[in-house]
Amino acid sequence: MRLARFATRASSESKSEAYGLLKGKNIIHLPQLVNMLGQTMPSSLERFISLGLKEKDIQELIQKTTGKDLDTVTFPLKETKLLAPIVNPSKIICLGLNYKDHAQEQGQISPQEPIIFLKPRTAIIGPEERIVKPKLVTQLDYEAELAIVVGERCKNIAIKDAKRCIFGYTAMNDVSARNIQFKDKQWTRGKSFDTFAPIGPCITTTNQIGDPAKLRICARVNGEMRQNSTTGNMMMDVYQILHHLSLVMTLEPCDIICTGTPAGTGFTMSPPRFLQHDDLVEIEIEGIGALCNQVFEEGRPNPVHP
Amino acid sequence: MRLARFATRASSESKSEAYGLLKGKNIIHLPQLVNMLGQTMPSSLERFISLGLKEKDIQELIQKTTGKDLDTVTFPLKETKLLAPIVNPSKIICLGLNYKDHAQEQGQISPQEPIIFLKPRTAIIGPEERIVKPKLVTQLDYEAELAIVVGERCKNIAIKDAKRCIFGYTAMNDVSARNIQFKDKQWTRGKSFDTFAPIGPCITTTNQIGDPAKLRICARVNGEMRQNSTTGNMMMDVYQILHHLSLVMTLEPCDIICTGTPAGTGFTMSPPRFLQHDDLVEIEIEGIGALCNQVFEEGRPNPVHP
Repeated sequence: MRLARFATRASSESKSEAYGLLKGKNIIHLPQLVNMLGQTMPSSLERFISLGLKEKDIQELIQKTTGKDLDTVTFPLKETKLLAPIVNPSKIICLGLNYKDHAQEQGQISPQEPIIFLKPRTAIIGPEERIVKPKLVTQLDYEAELAIVVGERCKNIAIKDAKRCIFGYTAMNDVSARNIQFKDKQWTRGKSFDTFAPIGPCITTTNQIGDPAKLRICARVNGEMRQNSTTGNMMMDVYQILHHLSLVMTLEPCDIICTGTPAGTGFTMSPPRFLQHDDLVEIEIEGIGALCNQVFEEGRPNPVHP
Repeated sequence: MRLARFATRASSESKSEAYGLLKGKNIIHLPQLVNMLGQTMPSSLERFISLGLKEKDIQELIQKTTGKDLDTVTFPLKETKLLAPIVNPSKIICLGLNYKDHAQEQGQISPQEPIIFLKPRTAIIGPEERIVKPKLVTQLDYEAELAIVVGERCKNIAIKDAKRCIFGYTAMNDVSARNIQFKDKQWTRGKSFDTFAPIGPCITTTNQIGDPAKLRICARVNGEMRQNSTTGNMMMDVYQILHHLSLVMTLEPCDIICTGTPAGTGFTMSPPRFLQHDDLVEIEIEGIGALCNQVFEEGRPNPVHP
């Protein structure tokens, strides 16, 4: 299944949030659906993930619902606004240099064990939200990444058991201030600015993603293809990553693990091409969809909304 | 005031937790005290901090209470177990190279802007809990650090306004696996192992700490003084740190900011002296107290408790 958090036009006025199942051009409001059947559903998508609810549980609920009732809890996507699927992860762990093509374009070799940094949750934004480029960031860059959403608390997990600890996958743009990242040498500060962790548009569960080592992964800037690779170019695959990280720290439900970025980032181009005000960045991953965010330079007048 | 989370022998059996005010060799159970007055208190110390409760509110409550009633909610420290004062911070931000003496002993110069990394909350342990040295850590080291506890949500805060965003201070041992930290070059993985973030024993509020730039800070291993400095050796003081970090990210109540470590870490000694099984590490900061943790090497038989 593909799950998303969303606001309807009505609910965004009342500040209430909802989550549901993406079906074609619609989304089924899961808490409302379950409420109609006289049962209760976790109050948030994060709680849903932590409780380990499975697709068959949801399918059974849908089958119990008559077509007419289903219509009342189904919203056309064009009337909703998708939100970041997770906003309060315990941690966001990011891998560096995990794509062979990206390591190569920097004249480096991918490491055998994960090189990591953490991003703060205050950096998270959702689809269509704006990436803010503050004054002290002169070299703003994108990084398309497949992000694992952890489903189960785990420590010291074997590679063969890693799959069951994964709830699903989403897309992440590991937005980076290269001037700060390279000045500091430690990557964290340049990647921790507010709005530097766009995620979404949805979480696709493990049973629906297919082989996570065979997904097309792209980044486009204003429609121009910049990154165009496959998750097969990862040095460590998702299961090896989970294994290695779990030797270090306990992984918890809703933890987000960003698995590295392929070749084609702005700073590796010759000459480098950084993101500017108004640029539209799209991260697209097969089976998940496209995550679109526009860049807004701090100090510019706010765009006029219709 | 000095605030701590704790478990009484009785409450630790019932799994309930409490927090309170340290007074000499006793601790006053704040939720019980307030309950006695027919009022309610935040259910956790983290909630208490987030609500911005002030010392005078607490002092008024204590003055309203008769001596006899106060006795019933006062526990001798020796009958309690202090716990990590914060367990679910949104982020733990750590500064590198912020003490001039520590930068110097490595032949480096302290930076003008903070070099940071983040630690995951899964690394937190409390006073007297064991630091676990896993098999893949061959060079285990300590770092005594003064930790700021953020009291107010803030962004882009001026240095002159930084003080009001600070709730108080605690001690942190930024436990580090040097073999991994230096192999990775990025510091995060070597500092993110479970149990690598001992904090406590209490949070001392800003009004009681005195001048945060004049605090004695020490680390002892098995009673031997290893680090012995003052927070006056910091390159950036706590207010400058808060200012710089808030230019990057929104700080939130209960965020923990570790302000760097002074000279005397194990890896800078000649020859280097790393932590071994059974070593007792004490981090002591003036006005806060001593944070003691023993090292336990994974795979050793569990110590026998009386």
